[in-house]
Amino acid sequence: MNKGTLFIVSGPSGCGKGTILAEVLKNDNIYYSISATTRDPRPGETDGVNYHFLTKEKFEELIDGNGMLEYASYCGNYYGTPRKPVEDMLAQGKHVILEIEVQGALKVMEKCPEAVSVFILPPSMKELRRRLNKRGTETEDVIERRLEQAGNEIRQADKYDYVMINGDLDDAVRDLMSIIKAQELKKENSEYLINEVLYNA
Amino acid sequence: MNKGTLFIVSGPSGCGKGTILAEVLKNDNIYYSISATTRDPRPGETDGVNYHFLTKEKFEELIDGNGMLEYASYCGNYYGTPRKPVEDMLAQGKHVILEIEVQGALKVMEKCPEAVSVFILPPSMKELRRRLNKRGTETEDVIERRLEQAGNEIRQADKYDYVMINGDLDDAVRDLMSIIKAQELKKENSEYLINEVLYNA
Repeated sequence: MNKGTLFIVSGPSGCGKGTILAEVLKNDNIYYSISATTRDPRPGETDGVNYHFLTKEKFEELIDGNGMLEYASYCGNYYGTPRKPVEDMLAQGKHVILEIEVQGALKVMEKCPEAVSVFILPPSMKELRRRLNKRGTETEDVIERRLEQAGNEIRQADKYDYVMINGDLDDAVRDLMSIIKAQELKKENSEYLINEVLYNA
Repeated sequence: MNKGTLFIVSGPSGCGKGTILAEVLKNDNIYYSISATTRDPRPGETDGVNYHFLTKEKFEELIDGNGMLEYASYCGNYYGTPRKPVEDMLAQGKHVILEIEVQGALKVMEKCPEAVSVFILPPSMKELRRRLNKRGTETEDVIERRLEQAGNEIRQADKYDYVMINGDLDDAVRDLMSIIKAQELKKENSEYLINEVLYNA
């Protein structure tokens, strides 16, 4: 059996990451990395499902012990990616998808150079604005700020291994699955096949 | 528009390359590189379809002018891959598939480091023997020699970028298409998308 691959997936708010990942995660062999945070659970949130909810002490213990692939603090709380669950999944031959914003992604790329990174683009800024407007939950002001942030993120897309567009959902799911499949077929990941074919009767 | 990619595809006789490629070549954007040879056309063979049939003088002129990506001589005739048709297709943004045996493949990898190479394995040597037997066209002796050659080729599969198994045709076609799709999505090949999204209204 082969080790799994860590896939880092980023894309601006409104690009449709969540919808694409929901489809891709229907595959048995692909897992979603759950973040850890020190903030309190909100009503309806479950530990180990939405987040791993940790105390500040536990979180800092993990930081000190190199137990976080990346972390950041935001509004007085820590947010981060615990290393161990990711490594356990990979060792079991499962792929892990880490959905994360650009700054965190760059840190993980540095720590895990064998990870494969994918940036998801919206078809255009106009379409991104339309999608953000459609949600109807944010003021014009917030949407302007999100679009500006999206622009900053997209300008860093060239730091990722792969860049794909989410125009049509089915195409985008197929694109991400192709990236995952190709990764499985890379020589480094399938060398054992050669021996299997040669020496198994 | 982006340049196309040259895909080098090898695999032992009986691995099912031809059947997989016939399916993949149904895609508009994927072309098959036609070899050149100095041997005479056999009945039913057409110039520019089965081979580019060249005179010895023309072939040697191409060799001297670096017009061949690779060539070899066999039974007194030259066989090779003309460089220009391949480069023309790539410049037009089309992918080119070069189906070629291992020695030629290694030469092309050296000359075209940006090419993507794929080795197709049979599921097992036993299954390969079954497939070769099934053809019913060769003596036991010839089949033994083919199997030995297949073993030698398979032992060099780790020199390719990707290694895939042809157990089930549909899966194999999907695997090769995934490799081609992933190549299109590589950052190097999709950087223009980032600017398109950012600056196209």
